[in-house]
This record gives sequence, C-alpha cells and structure tokens, in this order.
Amino acid sequence: MTTQKGSSQPAESDPPPNTTRHRPTTMREVAEAAAVSVATVSLVVNNKKDARIGADTRKRVRDAIRVLGYRPNALAKNLVSGSSRFIGLVADAIATTPFAGQIIRGAQDEAWKHGYVLLIANTEGNEPAEKEAISMMLEHKVRGILYSTWYHRVAQVPAALNETDFVLVNCFARDSDAWAVVPDEVQGGRAATEILIRHGHRRIAFLNTTTPSPARDGRLQGYREALESAGIPFDPNLVFDAYPDQEGGYAAVEGLVQCGVTAVFCHNDRVAMGVYDGLRQVGMSIPEDIAVVGFDNQEVIAAHLRPPLSTVALPHYRLGAAGVRLLLGLDEAPGNGVLRIVCPVVERDSVSTRQEKAPANM
Amino acid sequence: MTTQKGSSQPAESDPPPNTTRHRPTTMREVAEAAAVSVATVSLVVNNKKDARIGADTRKRVRDAIRVLGYRPNALAKNLVSGSSRFIGLVADAIATTPFAGQIIRGAQDEAWKHGYVLLIANTEGNEPAEKEAISMMLEHKVRGILYSTWYHRVAQVPAALNETDFVLVNCFARDSDAWAVVPDEVQGGRAATEILIRHGHRRIAFLNTTTPSPARDGRLQGYREALESAGIPFDPNLVFDAYPDQEGGYAAVEGLVQCGVTAVFCHNDRVAMGVYDGLRQVGMSIPEDIAVVGFDNQEVIAAHLRPPLSTVALPHYRLGAAGVRLLLGLDEAPGNGVLRIVCPVVERDSVSTRQEKAPANM
Repeated sequence: MTTQKGSSQPAESDPPPNTTRHRPTTMREVAEAAAVSVATVSLVVNNKKDARIGADTRKRVRDAIRVLGYRPNALAKNLVSGSSRFIGLVADAIATTPFAGQIIRGAQDEAWKHGYVLLIANTEGNEPAEKEAISMMLEHKVRGILYSTWYHRVAQVPAALNETDFVLVNCFARDSDAWAVVPDEVQGGRAATEILIRHGHRRIAFLNTTTPSPARDGRLQGYREALESAGIPFDPNLVFDAYPDQEGGYAAVEGLVQCGVTAVFCHNDRVAMGVYDGLRQVGMSIPEDIAVVGFDNQEVIAAHLRPPLSTVALPHYRLGAAGVRLLLGLDEAPGNGVLRIVCPVVERDSVSTRQEKAPANM
Repeated sequence: MTTQKGSSQPAESDPPPNTTRHRPTTMREVAEAAAVSVATVSLVVNNKKDARIGADTRKRVRDAIRVLGYRPNALAKNLVSGSSRFIGLVADAIATTPFAGQIIRGAQDEAWKHGYVLLIANTEGNEPAEKEAISMMLEHKVRGILYSTWYHRVAQVPAALNETDFVLVNCFARDSDAWAVVPDEVQGGRAATEILIRHGHRRIAFLNTTTPSPARDGRLQGYREALESAGIPFDPNLVFDAYPDQEGGYAAVEGLVQCGVTAVFCHNDRVAMGVYDGLRQVGMSIPEDIAVVGFDNQEVIAAHLRPPLSTVALPHYRLGAAGVRLLLGLDEAPGNGVLRIVCPVVERDSVSTRQEKAPANM
C-alpha cells in the first residue's frame, strides 16, 4: 500500500498532459534488429512449432522482442486462429453489490490460468444493454459466455446466448438443460441451523425472506432437515417472514421474543443486523439471551457487528471459477447440468463467546 | 425480476448439455442471400460511406444481415482500422469493495455511449497481475487505459502505461503531470461539517482515520474551513484518531463523551456505525444527545442504521465516467491535470429527525 505524509495534493505542475506516449515497436523493427525477415518474426511470435526455424534464429528474434519491448497484436493473432482468447461475462449488477465482484474475481483468476481474458459487461438488468453486451461479445468471437446474476434466481436465457457456449452463474434456467453453477442453498440452511443445534439450542426460529427465491425455499428445507436429523420437531410457528434487510430484521424482533426461542437463524446478515438492534432495544444480549446466525458473510457487516456474527458464506468466488471450468470443459457438469457449490460456515461470537464461560461465577 | 413459486430446483432433465450451438452465419451467405459480392457486403458492414453502392443494394444487404442474424467480426474490423474499440480498466480491488463497482459502471456507461467496450482487469494490488493485465490491454490495441484504485491514494504509475494514453481514477501520481480524476476531499469534509453547523452545533468532534491518505488530510482541511467560515475556533482536542472501521468508532466513544461535544463528523460510515453502538452502550441517543454525520454513503450500511445516517457520498460513478471523458478528449483536464469531483451530501435522520420536534411536549 502506498501511503503518504503531509500535503495530499499532487504537485501543481505545468499543463502539458500525457503526450509523451511512446510509438509502439513494429514487427519490422524486430526483424531488422534480429536480421531476419518479417515472416520469420511472425512465425516465432505465433509460436508455429512446425516452422523450420533454427534455435539460434528463434533466440535472436526473442531477444530482439524483449530488448525493443515489442508487443504482438493479439487482435491479428485471434483473427488468424479464428477465435479469440476472450470469455464474456455478463453481470446484472456489478455496481450495487459487493457479491458480483467476487464472481468476477473467481472467473478472472480461473480464465487467466488458462490464457483467457474476460470481457465484462454490466447490464443493471436492462434488457437492451444485455442484448448489446452479448452482441459485442459474439462479434469479438468469445470462446463462450458466463451469464451471471447477483442473487441466486431463475433466469430467462437470452436467445443470443445459443450462438455460443454458455454457463449460467448464480442462476439457472427452468425447463432447460443449460449448464448452471449455483450455491447449495439447502446445505447452507442446514449448516446454519446445525451451528445452533451443536451449541445445545432446540427452540430455534428462522427469519426467512419475503421474496420468493431458491434461497427462500432451499434454506427453509435445510433448516427442516437439520432439525429432523437432531430429532427436533418442526414448528411452523417459529418460521417468520421478514423483509430481507435491517428494517425487516428489526421488525421481527417482537415476534421472536414472544415465542420464547433461544436462537435465531436469519435469512441474511442484514436481517441479523436489524435483529441485533431490536434485541438491544428490549435489553436482551447476544449470545447469552438469544444466539444469532446470519447468511452471506457480508464483508462490511458480519465481522463488525457487536458481537461479531456467526454466518454461512455464499461461495461467489468459487461460482465464478467453476463457471469458467465448465465452459472450458475442464470440469464436467453433473447429469442435470446444475452444479451446486457448498456454502462454508464462518463461526464468530454470536452463538457462544469463544472462551466458554465457567457456568459458576456468572 | 424473475421470481418463482414452489420448488426452487431446476427440472432434473437428461444429460445432453449446451450442444445445440448454431453455426454462425458467414459473410458469403449474406452475399448470396442479397445477390451481391462478398466485397459489397464487407463495404456495407464497414460502413464505407464513400463506396459507390446504391441505396437499394445497401438495403438488400442490411435486410439479409438482419434475417440471417449475421454478426460482423469485430476483431477483423479493429485490425483494418489499426486500433480497437477497447478501453482498458485496471482496478486494484473489484472484489473487496462495493465502491469499485460504481467506478466500473460509470466508466462502462460512458464508454458505451461513444462506441467503446471496457476490458476490465482486477489485480488485487498484485504487481505481476497488474503487469500482465496492462500487457494484455496493449496487445489488444486499446484506445487507452484507466488505472483505478479502490480508495483515493497516491499511485506508482506502472511504466507500461506510458505506451498508451491513460488516466488515473481515484488516485494520482506524485511529481508527474499524469491526468487524474479524484474525489474532492476538502469540499466533502466541508460539506459534512456544514450539515452539523447548519443545525446549530458549535462543539463538533472529528473522528479522523489513522491511515495517512488524501482523505485524512483533505477532510480535516474541509472541517477546519467550515468551522472558520462559521466563526467557530478550531480546537485540536476535538480531533480524534480512529481506526477506520466499526471497532475504531466504538473505541472512540469514551473520548467523545468526555469532551462534551454535541455532534461528531466520522471519517466514514463504518466508524459512524461503531459510534452508534458505543453511544447506545452508554445510553445516549442519536440525534438528541449527539448528532452524527458519516462519509461514503456505503450501500449496505448508511441508510439502514437506526436512525438512518446523514453522510457525504463518494462520487465513484462520476469518477469512472469522467475518466473515460478525459481519455477520449471529450473533456479537458484542468491546468494541473487533476480533476476533482464533488462529493454530494445525503441527509437522513442522524442530525435531526425530519419532522422537527416541537420544543415543548418533550
């Protein structure tokens, strides 16, 4: 990290802007420096293994490329090979959520590993923008397209995607055999509930979202499965609907307190943050009076609540990486085309403080 | 938004994956359908205005393109024109902050407006990744590069950037005349303090960050300027250092309470969130006992605290858009090469509740 002391303002220098741009080195200049033909340079640059060029000549060309700082034209290379080293990534909301960034990072790291570059387009869910983005990618002869959404949902697959290979990331298509990579919501819901069961809780509320979604259905199913495995009967009165943000969590606290639970699994970390505020309001402590588990492991929230929130992370980085691996044929899709990625548990202090308290001396 | 009811699982259908890929239409097929030569199709596609092609023929070709779904090869087009319609965007942390997303969105919207496409690379501050990203962009003959950082700071400009036009976004170079677009930290600090002064406060603390940065220096300067304009003497005892997250804000509350201020300007929204927790702990109310202003307008926090936080927004979207405009020569850089963008005020309820309370009846 670059830091600085004193004045933060850049030097107020004279006008002339960034006009010192170097002229790029040409293939001809490389050829002259290496005393070979332009055709020979081209063969070396394009790594034609079968071209009859001596090791000596090859080395001379490589040295000249290095010394002169020659950059081969990737566009020309792509044109010769008939396809590009691009993978397209269409995202519906890079801007409004930190989650999309992790999908991009996972996809990019995996793409680079295999010599591909991402062409990213952010559409903000706008249909004309989406159409334009996919056209742009097809015109650039992408190897394929990842079509991603910022929250796990059913997607309407744009028709133009069928013109290339594609993988849906964080979404899936109904009545279609399109490949998709999604978080395993059922396993995540089960894992969240199991944290609470493991700490001795048996009366556990679930604040589920009001928004119909795979997350809503899957996490509820996971909650029920965890209870069942632990021999705890499912009580529908302990499942509450809460709008999936802080205000929703806050509003649900009254119901929580009335039904006398000792623990609550919140649909997401924002809801948990609202529950924190509501419990404080009525003088209840976390985890002593009520243990809380969230979902998402949201960067700026989860670790910074008081106490820090135990939660289940959405595996966005892995979703992006797995999407690229499916697209490039490095991994196989399961039979039904939908690959589910595990949501890992992140334990902090909202279920029990890390140093177990001595039960006397309280 | 696509929603769904009932089971969230996609249909478990038979294996065959996305193999129904259509073969792309060729230029020859367009030529045949329009009964013209391939050369004529090429002239129409490349929009050669001076080519002598009748309006009738031009229309016939365009119709065939539409009906057959032909997509011109952008790579070939770029190669013919000698440069591409790409703008590179190097970002140091797409993944770990929602801010980077807004820079990308602003840059993309502005680029698309002018027929350019962004090539985005996320480097996570890793130097080899950064070098590789810039090489990739230069090889794709980008029109220029935006080099952006997730927080406002001094940047070491990578040497390879000099091979093309570039603009620094959210950072600037010391002792250099490189063009840069940065947030106006001084104006932002002034605006934040002025919200509090406008509501009658005269004893106003400033919880500044411990990290040396343009934000640290600029916001302090803005705070001092606002006090001075209002005729309030600057008291260095009211400026506190706080680590710039929730824990830092929480830890600063004791000092705040002891010095008897009626208002506090926090370096960022995360610090303000910690101050909320700390004030609640000691039984003080916001805004009645202490008014609070943050900085950043951080998506998942600011609007969702109790009460919602008044703050000053960082203009990330505009930073990205302004960077593209400078790069394309649509706007001129100021004399010193550094363009400062205004940080807008976002008023909520942490300074005064929106319905002014009647002073009796309390």
